[in-house]
Amino acid sequence: MIRFQCDYAEGAHPKILERLAETNYCQTPGYGMDEFCDHARAMIKEACEAPASEVHFLVGGTQTNATVISSILRPYQGVLCASTGHIAAHETGAIEHTGHKVITLPSYGGKIKAQDVQDAYTAHWNDGSHEHIVQPAMVYISFPTEFGTIYSKSELEEISAVCRRNRLPLFIDGARLGYGLTCDACDVTLPEIARLCDVFYIGGTKQGALFGEAVVFTNSAAEPYADLSDCFRYNIKQNGGMLAKGRLLGIQYEVLFEKTETGWLYTDIAANANRHARTIREALVAKGIDFHVDSPTNQIFPVLTSAQMEKIGKDFAYEVWQPLPDGRTCVRFCTSWATKAENVEALVKAINEL
Amino acid sequence: MIRFQCDYAEGAHPKILERLAETNYCQTPGYGMDEFCDHARAMIKEACEAPASEVHFLVGGTQTNATVISSILRPYQGVLCASTGHIAAHETGAIEHTGHKVITLPSYGGKIKAQDVQDAYTAHWNDGSHEHIVQPAMVYISFPTEFGTIYSKSELEEISAVCRRNRLPLFIDGARLGYGLTCDACDVTLPEIARLCDVFYIGGTKQGALFGEAVVFTNSAAEPYADLSDCFRYNIKQNGGMLAKGRLLGIQYEVLFEKTETGWLYTDIAANANRHARTIREALVAKGIDFHVDSPTNQIFPVLTSAQMEKIGKDFAYEVWQPLPDGRTCVRFCTSWATKAENVEALVKAINEL
Amino acid sequence: MIRFQCDYAEGAHPKILERLAETNYCQTPGYGMDEFCDHARAMIKEACEAPASEVHFLVGGTQTNATVISSILRPYQGVLCASTGHIAAHETGAIEHTGHKVITLPSYGGKIKAQDVQDAYTAHWNDGSHEHIVQPAMVYISFPTEFGTIYSKSELEEISAVCRRNRLPLFIDGARLGYGLTCDACDVTLPEIARLCDVFYIGGTKQGALFGEAVVFTNSAAEPYADLSDCFRYNIKQNGGMLAKGRLLGIQYEVLFEKTETGWLYTDIAANANRHARTIREALVAKGIDFHVDSPTNQIFPVLTSAQMEKIGKDFAYEVWQPLPDGRTCVRFCTSWATKAENVEALVKAINEL
Amino acid sequence: MIRFQCDYAEGAHPKILERLAETNYCQTPGYGMDEFCDHARAMIKEACEAPASEVHFLVGGTQTNATVISSILRPYQGVLCASTGHIAAHETGAIEHTGHKVITLPSYGGKIKAQDVQDAYTAHWNDGSHEHIVQPAMVYISFPTEFGTIYSKSELEEISAVCRRNRLPLFIDGARLGYGLTCDACDVTLPEIARLCDVFYIGGTKQGALFGEAVVFTNSAAEPYADLSDCFRYNIKQNGGMLAKGRLLGIQYEVLFEKTETGWLYTDIAANANRHARTIREALVAKGIDFHVDSPTNQIFPVLTSAQMEKIGKDFAYEVWQPLPDGRTCVRFCTSWATKAENVEALVKAINEL
Repeated sequence: MIRFQCDYAEGAHPKILERLAETNYCQTPGYGMDEFCDHARAMIKEACEAPASEVHFLVGGTQTNATVISSILRPYQGVLCASTGHIAAHETGAIEHTGHKVITLPSYGGKIKAQDVQDAYTAHWNDGSHEHIVQPAMVYISFPTEFGTIYSKSELEEISAVCRRNRLPLFIDGARLGYGLTCDACDVTLPEIARLCDVFYIGGTKQGALFGEAVVFTNSAAEPYADLSDCFRYNIKQNGGMLAKGRLLGIQYEVLFEKTETGWLYTDIAANANRHARTIREALVAKGIDFHVDSPTNQIFPVLTSAQMEKIGKDFAYEVWQPLPDGRTCVRFCTSWATKAENVEALVKAINEL
Repeated sequence: MIRFQCDYAEGAHPKILERLAETNYCQTPGYGMDEFCDHARAMIKEACEAPASEVHFLVGGTQTNATVISSILRPYQGVLCASTGHIAAHETGAIEHTGHKVITLPSYGGKIKAQDVQDAYTAHWNDGSHEHIVQPAMVYISFPTEFGTIYSKSELEEISAVCRRNRLPLFIDGARLGYGLTCDACDVTLPEIARLCDVFYIGGTKQGALFGEAVVFTNSAAEPYADLSDCFRYNIKQNGGMLAKGRLLGIQYEVLFEKTETGWLYTDIAANANRHARTIREALVAKGIDFHVDSPTNQIFPVLTSAQMEKIGKDFAYEVWQPLPDGRTCVRFCTSWATKAENVEALVKAINEL
Repeated sequence: MIRFQCDYAEGAHPKILERLAETNYCQTPGYGMDEFCDHARAMIKEACEAPASEVHFLVGGTQTNATVISSILRPYQGVLCASTGHIAAHETGAIEHTGHKVITLPSYGGKIKAQDVQDAYTAHWNDGSHEHIVQPAMVYISFPTEFGTIYSKSELEEISAVCRRNRLPLFIDGARLGYGLTCDACDVTLPEIARLCDVFYIGGTKQGALFGEAVVFTNSAAEPYADLSDCFRYNIKQNGGMLAKGRLLGIQYEVLFEKTETGWLYTDIAANANRHARTIREALVAKGIDFHVDSPTNQIFPVLTSAQMEKIGKDFAYEVWQPLPDGRTCVRFCTSWATKAENVEALVKAINEL
Repeated sequence: MIRFQCDYAEGAHPKILERLAETNYCQTPGYGMDEFCDHARAMIKEACEAPASEVHFLVGGTQTNATVISSILRPYQGVLCASTGHIAAHETGAIEHTGHKVITLPSYGGKIKAQDVQDAYTAHWNDGSHEHIVQPAMVYISFPTEFGTIYSKSELEEISAVCRRNRLPLFIDGARLGYGLTCDACDVTLPEIARLCDVFYIGGTKQGALFGEAVVFTNSAAEPYADLSDCFRYNIKQNGGMLAKGRLLGIQYEVLFEKTETGWLYTDIAANANRHARTIREALVAKGIDFHVDSPTNQIFPVLTSAQMEKIGKDFAYEVWQPLPDGRTCVRFCTSWATKAENVEALVKAINEL
């Protein structure tokens, strides 16, 4: 069985394992106060061209989302999010567990629209009973989204402008950020992401690390949210995200942000996965297979018949995404840093033979 | 600088790194549903001689404590704990963050007494206003404690008996369980631990793993708390403790629970650390240095003068534990799986020269 | 200005004030442990024909909803509710504040359908990733709904059957229960309500009391949820709902549940308000005015033009409910125990002159 | 049986009932947005000589404490409080329920010392691991305390100074404020209270109202905590404290803050209760009975033998406070606005006959 189910089916990029082995006996203080972390933080700030930013490492995505969001909101406030957003749909209510409502907006292929943010904000404050309603107080988007789609630069600029006009911190879930930044359709850079939002994270778990998410408080707003990251380490600890051997996060991000000819190891890994996904997508298109959503990144969402699912399923694992009204099923194929060319070829062959 | 500050200053036992490298390209499902985890769970159940038990893997200690405790308590209930317990003192209020009060009992070198548990329980239910008071509903102890001390078998039996008589689930924080089980003073075994409590964890982070805590719901009570582990995976996910690459936990525990001539790698590692700690302790005793608490495990707590601290501090890092009224300071020296004999010798030499 | 804005614009039914004055110097224990409360509880159990039920008094609706729901759910569970339900829309996230997600279902004039409950339940358990999704674990409906509509007996029976089949406790928000039970369209009785759900409340605030909601844990299921009300008084206290002078609640409910020729004071009051609402509704219908929702109870929701709103608004206060796409506005007129016939006549006259 | 058990055994001051009857049919908007509340707020601001203050009405004490405290703290912060403080001991963990730790300080007859606040603050920030510890971020005191004792003006000034130096908002629980302000030992005025703290409340429930607590955000600090009351009404609603018929609170406080020759009805009521308590205290002293705590207000805490308890208990209800090691019991006698002179005389007679 060859797995195209998810982008976390293997361990870590071999360079990370090597570096962990090399540094294994170095002695460091715990909880992220070590030199590896310091260095990785500096590398990330440089990569983001955001010298005023503040970087923190956490272990996983759900933990990061809950920690960041609950650190920003007051008790009566909620976070605006696409109805398909990860925090709304797939984190077992981790945000509600911290006491906050996820206020959903319409999802357009996983994305939200700036105008919908403005409308939700305006509607709240225009409602005579607004004190009886959760106050929308920050915006969560994912880049790429849960459907592998990405926002264009102009879309991000519009959302950012709406957020800053209304003093809504903008938080970008970058669990798969690299796949977004390096796909063909992308016209935005890492520094631009950092400039347009107030806090985001650079996902490691799904992009070559054993685990890890690097949170960046950008401090980039003209009128800054001065205290957004205030005492954030307390929040990390309280939410169970402060790794005793914090160095493991620093070491991994040092490797991921090593410069390469084309960027960093982090983006090279992702670009390669995107290429593999494109090859698979093209084979599906050639076969006349529909897509539930048109995604330019490492996750693709073809719509298969039961016969096709069964046939492909003999040798390849995929994720069943959702049954469709017409009896077909939207499935997900995922590539990653670890996807092997020969496995892609085998899958393409199987698709051709459907 | 040689560090005796903590037991998480280095990476992981080399066998763990080797095994991670060997398995790196194996493809598995995520979130702990893989074969490595299945195997590790079976190994742990066998080691605990607890076939009816249920094992779950989490990443870190604070996360584990908050997840287990909040999964058991009803909203108006609290957890009884020594005033020096980790959940009371050093987790940034993670338990309170989940809505529950930590109800403190007197600490005797880090330990609580069975009678104090009974008295707290009785006092609550005898109070005419008990509905106005947080209901004590479970008991948390650490083995070894935060002061490196351990409960004797008969002490554990007494606490267990009080708990079961009053239907208070007993939870043992085993972040350093191996150090406890293998120290000279210990007269209790892993299966006995499993038999006497209702849920406990076998700490990996501080005993050779990169990270990881294995929670065991023992299902050992004559009259079982049937639903103690009910839907526990939801709780893990909601609390941000469900690692996407869950296999990493399975792989590490497979290594730690490989059988050796004297037990498992897990206990061998700990026994060795305890031996190093004893060597250091003996040097301190020989020098006439007092101890704040008499600990038989890998953490020792000598009381030093400022001059001694400065002298030792030139070459050795230790943890400043707490200033004492007489001007001296309680410090902590810690050994671990990674402690090198030559470093212990160097420290002993420095102690001799104080 | 004559107010038809809400059903809590005045104080309390005069008999309640009288009774408060008569009993003012009686000395009683606090916190609802007094004879007035005991008597009122017995009267309510009798009215519900539910001798096995348990009755508790709280102060207000939001408090009651949050206290009941959070007392029943485990941390990872959520409550199913119409998207227009009060807990979803108008309680400033009080449910999320207790850590739980409100899982919304489609609203049909404020009501949900039994089949939608079953589908949500089935979809959850059929989803391979259900541990990553909030578990639907109880059902909240309001009777009458926030739009003044009511469930028929057969609708309630279907919802109840789905709930019991899937072990989902059914909670009925009866903030305006009396208006529902006494409206022309109603074919269900108070004892039937008690038999069909697991917990509900009999609202006082909006039906003649100064304040107060009587929660009834019915213990009516064939296979009972034995511990649903376990230690509920702790929950009340913790949620700030335990009134020191609890007797005030007992005294008020004693008055409301005094028997009359046609039922109880509670239902007589409501029936009268419904009659006034019908008179207003008929005047609006006669004038050819549309309704946003067709409501048989004391809240009615006509759709007015700006000109009509202005004209009526000169002498009468109403609630602006929501602007409609066609430029008209849905408004709410409300009657109550305190509505005076001459005011209704004045309003009807104004409607006729529109 | 004559009750001296608590100060909430009766209904309300007759003037309050009269005024409720008079205003019963006035129509007002809900939720505290009415003219009665506006007027009462203005009266309170005037009585406090605090024109910049902001006044809100809630229903009960536990609710008020939880709402105020959780509205001020960030998630990782806790509130400093005497170990005997109401929020620490008698509110079923309502503060922890909102996610925050109550950090206890030594209690001296119910009071804390300014130096202990400073020491706790300093110790936190001096601890190298402070990010692992709940951050002390506000101070809660009660005036009078749970033992009926009061702070002197200079004690309050010291605590206030420590708080403002360290930017710790000072919150005074004034559930029995009037009894404190009017007792013989008191050297502080209502405006001085308002000047020295950042938020406090003027308790109604225990001082003549049916229920109600008036929270005053004082905005009195030289360097103000500008946003302390920001969006506080959202917090009230979310915590279930926003009474639909909010006018009931306004009406009651209008009555309580009517001016009298010696102050306001509020203080006259309390002064009278204090006089009755003094009479009882003097009888006990004359009889040679010890006191657990020496209280100058309406609650007194004599220490009785079992024989004395039984004898008194035949005709008089008192509160059993706590058993003492010597076999005697600390009990509480309480007077209130409703205490009748003839009942005090009867009690004094019974004491004389002990």
